[in-house]
Amino acid sequence: MIEMNQLQSGIVEAASKVRASNPMAGSITNSVTIDFVANAQLAVGGSAAMVYLPDEGECLVAAGGAVYINMGTLLPVYEETLPRTAAAAHAAGKPWVLDPVGIGIGSLRTKLLRGFKPYKPAIVRGNASEIIALAGLWDLEGDASELSRARGVDTTDTVAAARDAAVALARYTGGAVAVSGESDLVTDGSTVAYSTGGSALMGKVTGFGCSLGGVAAVYAAQADPFTATLAAVAHYNVAGTRAAATADAPASFKVAFIDELYRATPDDIANNPLRIEEA
Amino acid sequence: MIEMNQLQSGIVEAASKVRASNPMAGSITNSVTIDFVANAQLAVGGSAAMVYLPDEGECLVAAGGAVYINMGTLLPVYEETLPRTAAAAHAAGKPWVLDPVGIGIGSLRTKLLRGFKPYKPAIVRGNASEIIALAGLWDLEGDASELSRARGVDTTDTVAAARDAAVALARYTGGAVAVSGESDLVTDGSTVAYSTGGSALMGKVTGFGCSLGGVAAVYAAQADPFTATLAAVAHYNVAGTRAAATADAPASFKVAFIDELYRATPDDIANNPLRIEEA
Amino acid sequence: MIEMNQLQSGIVEAASKVRASNPMAGSITNSVTIDFVANAQLAVGGSAAMVYLPDEGECLVAAGGAVYINMGTLLPVYEETLPRTAAAAHAAGKPWVLDPVGIGIGSLRTKLLRGFKPYKPAIVRGNASEIIALAGLWDLEGDASELSRARGVDTTDTVAAARDAAVALARYTGGAVAVSGESDLVTDGSTVAYSTGGSALMGKVTGFGCSLGGVAAVYAAQADPFTATLAAVAHYNVAGTRAAATADAPASFKVAFIDELYRATPDDIANNPLRIEEA
Repeated sequence: MIEMNQLQSGIVEAASKVRASNPMAGSITNSVTIDFVANAQLAVGGSAAMVYLPDEGECLVAAGGAVYINMGTLLPVYEETLPRTAAAAHAAGKPWVLDPVGIGIGSLRTKLLRGFKPYKPAIVRGNASEIIALAGLWDLEGDASELSRARGVDTTDTVAAARDAAVALARYTGGAVAVSGESDLVTDGSTVAYSTGGSALMGKVTGFGCSLGGVAAVYAAQADPFTATLAAVAHYNVAGTRAAATADAPASFKVAFIDELYRATPDDIANNPLRIEEA
Repeated sequence: MIEMNQLQSGIVEAASKVRASNPMAGSITNSVTIDFVANAQLAVGGSAAMVYLPDEGECLVAAGGAVYINMGTLLPVYEETLPRTAAAAHAAGKPWVLDPVGIGIGSLRTKLLRGFKPYKPAIVRGNASEIIALAGLWDLEGDASELSRARGVDTTDTVAAARDAAVALARYTGGAVAVSGESDLVTDGSTVAYSTGGSALMGKVTGFGCSLGGVAAVYAAQADPFTATLAAVAHYNVAGTRAAATADAPASFKVAFIDELYRATPDDIANNPLRIEEA
Repeated sequence: MIEMNQLQSGIVEAASKVRASNPMAGSITNSVTIDFVANAQLAVGGSAAMVYLPDEGECLVAAGGAVYINMGTLLPVYEETLPRTAAAAHAAGKPWVLDPVGIGIGSLRTKLLRGFKPYKPAIVRGNASEIIALAGLWDLEGDASELSRARGVDTTDTVAAARDAAVALARYTGGAVAVSGESDLVTDGSTVAYSTGGSALMGKVTGFGCSLGGVAAVYAAQADPFTATLAAVAHYNVAGTRAAATADAPASFKVAFIDELYRATPDDIANNPLRIEEA
């Protein structure tokens, strides 16, 4: 298991590199929160570009340091776009981030998510129900009957209940998995880290999960998947904690949050409360 | 005709239930204001999920307490998605909300809106021109030549001019109809209620109408269509009035408005100025 | 070359007319910043409507004073929608605004952009790399190998480097071209104007370029292309300068910016620093 101060210095390095190099991480993401994803990526120091078409997904892989696929609002053309983009990232050895949001809703989503398995996303981010459902769909932990345990886009499970599924997913992909919740779990299959902070208001605004996936992709362009995910999650928690100190209602909280993403220094991010244990 | 204090206690009950039960109301809605719809639904205490594909629309009907269909930015696949979603809601006896925005623009929109007639939306919300045009399209009041009286998405008629169309629509559907304007009209076909408040700045920001439809769907998951519509409209008016007390320009007004949606109590909502008369 | 005070009185007149007449400028624009485009159009005094389908694009041309085409997130149906909309505007003699964002990404984008040439947009707005690439694609200046010099949606060139391409484009279209940068260049092919102001924070929020195109379309509904573009660019610069005086981080800056768009008077806009020279 990695040591805490090693993790923290990795986070400082990742955040510093992102600020210095402005890495581009393209996205195919849902239209509900697409603006939040892009603005969060810019606020942390990255660059954003969003597309829908198959060859454009491949272009983003070639042009950027990482790619983000969020399953939110599927279009018919995604039947071609998403597999080709994931395959291109896998073939190029570039990290890609998967948010399996809405898993269990509709047949195309299930088909696409099942098909992603060989392309091993460097980072998977979801809520507890989504992570349990994906591990089941990929026959890694639990079974496919877990598929529809989410309620729309909301979790019905605790982070603790998703621990085994997250570890199993990370061991399979060789990357990292983040489970969002009151205390966020991040694992690479051998270490399980818990990052705390943020605010209950994050559940009263759409897109904190989606945009975290986009920010993780920005970090993945400059750091290994586990460090990138830890940095993104810690960045979100420190910004959420600070935003909640100045705003007590959802819309002003969202504005304050993005401002705090922009203001947080690499040290602020690395010093956000973190606890680790063996997987 | 229902009595005022009965309406008000119904509004208090609806708002309390929504806060307590966090009802999910899925949407198929336009991409311009989709983020505003979701954030307004969350701010009032509901849960949001948005999709585009036919079987996903049916999933949202099955998973949620109500469904919202907004005609804003039609995609080709909506030719299948929208009728199947409306039919599924009708068959399941679940309330669905229709916003006929853009009525008169393009052939698919007209075809889809005409086809909705047998599926009787529990709530129709629009501006005066849209309500007049829909009543004409459905041969309920006026005629189909009313179709293109809107200018893009703006009304060219007064709320008073849409009274008969609104009453005719509500009598046909057996649900409720809301006509947005300086004073908002809500009717169930036997009572006509007028709710006041809000701010002229609501016309300087896109999405107040669209997001009101989404909030009405959240309320419809917990109350009858007339009470749900009255609660949603009153919630918007009280939040708009309060936001205008702290913000005098559009973007800060929108932030303040969503914050005030979140802060308004059931009593605040029920006590917003309301006037009723027989239809 | 036109004289400075003539330009300024033209800007005052354009801004006054827009406020007085609330012109509608429909858009086919990307989903990342579609809400920002609409809200900016409303804040400056215009009206907005967004569509995706071919006959709806034609409807917007017929119903509005100008049309805006932004290439951001292409959908398959755009293969038909964009040419028909541009052709309809050209045939009707109505001004249309082109933002060639993402030029070089994917085959459909290149095909569509090449096909726009005969429809001569009244206004082209882009960053330096996009303007150079478009002039190359249209064989006006440089060559088609310039196509992929942008990095995703970011420029890799300076405004000065795009001067010749901008002048060549404007001479070809008979309209105006704007190159966004630290100092914004606007030309009609005989005069080159430089407008300054704004803030570096405009690069930390997505959509300042896209929404400027939408605002230029609103102005083009009431003024000649060169005056319209100058007014839109100056409006953005004065609002950006003022917003930066009250906000020092991206999300609060965006809110302040839209508020300042709404507050700026025709005189404020005309008096924003402007420098002109012969092309």
